[in-house]
Amino acid sequence: MLRGDITAAIRNAVMNELAEVGYGRLSIEAVARRAGVGKTAIYRRWSNKLEMVLEIVSAVAERSVPMPDTGSFAGDLQLLMFIVSKALQHQIASQIIPDLMAEAARNPKIAETLQRALRTHQQAVGEKIVGQAVERGELPAGTNADLAVDLMLGPLYWRLAVSRTPIDDDYLENLSTAVLGALREPRPAH
Amino acid sequence: MLRGDITAAIRNAVMNELAEVGYGRLSIEAVARRAGVGKTAIYRRWSNKLEMVLEIVSAVAERSVPMPDTGSFAGDLQLLMFIVSKALQHQIASQIIPDLMAEAARNPKIAETLQRALRTHQQAVGEKIVGQAVERGELPAGTNADLAVDLMLGPLYWRLAVSRTPIDDDYLENLSTAVLGALREPRPAH
Repeated sequence: MLRGDITAAIRNAVMNELAEVGYGRLSIEAVARRAGVGKTAIYRRWSNKLEMVLEIVSAVAERSVPMPDTGSFAGDLQLLMFIVSKALQHQIASQIIPDLMAEAARNPKIAETLQRALRTHQQAVGEKIVGQAVERGELPAGTNADLAVDLMLGPLYWRLAVSRTPIDDDYLENLSTAVLGALREPRPAH
Repeated sequence: MLRGDITAAIRNAVMNELAEVGYGRLSIEAVARRAGVGKTAIYRRWSNKLEMVLEIVSAVAERSVPMPDTGSFAGDLQLLMFIVSKALQHQIASQIIPDLMAEAARNPKIAETLQRALRTHQQAVGEKIVGQAVERGELPAGTNADLAVDLMLGPLYWRLAVSRTPIDDDYLENLSTAVLGALREPRPAH
């Protein structure tokens, strides 16, 4: 196998082992076996299990939340929500995310790494999508990008990863309309 | 101890054991020891660990999300968000919730019970708060109560339980203003 292929095989094996047995019971041996590589191939890349899992999961999470630029804020919002909802409904994500959240509750190093990755990425997505919308005159200058991303991701996460209520085609459309309404110039109460 | 006191002592012990060692390592022995009761007192109430934990956690979760009726939708929203944000920032909740979510990912019985409790309760809160607001003429008839609650709880859950970004005094106010904007009569895009 080529160097890049080996890395890809290991990444794949880690994601599948995480989904099947969870972080606590994941072993370097089982990852090596599943990837069809020797343990040394793994230890050449990462010094331990924690480092390996955090690097691989962060990279996958980053790839799965895109930086849309469709030409309109409504379009960016819909695309972001569509992709995030697909990712959250993927069976691998729905096993791995809760497991790592539980590990994070007990392991400050995991917590810090995951939360830093989430915050950094959330900030980048928010600044890009909201920044573009402000430039286009679709959102008022000074729109809180951080709050905007909480509104885009929070309801989907709550619904798909926590209460696990299925969504239909209308749901994403209603949600993005609501988020658009939330972020436009505030109107006085009636 | 009185019968009610024993139940309260057991409930307390279960919550603290869950926070300290997690569901997987929680034992009836340790709960009995911590509560200062015999194991038979526990088995008189619940037939096994799973049943005990699910009943106790569901009851605590239900108690911690109130059904506000302050006289205005804005007031209800602010009170609900304030109480939910306090609950999510409580150390016991921040250990127990991720742990049970991870168990749920591996145990369909836990998943089903937790999700059914969440959905039932979410529906009740949504119907009450949104129903009151529609009656008062603050929200349009036909407002989607389910989506409304996703918008109220999702961003707080995402921020406080997932990305764990601290919130300041302004955050809850900005979030409730945004949710109000999201649910009012939709305006045409400009």
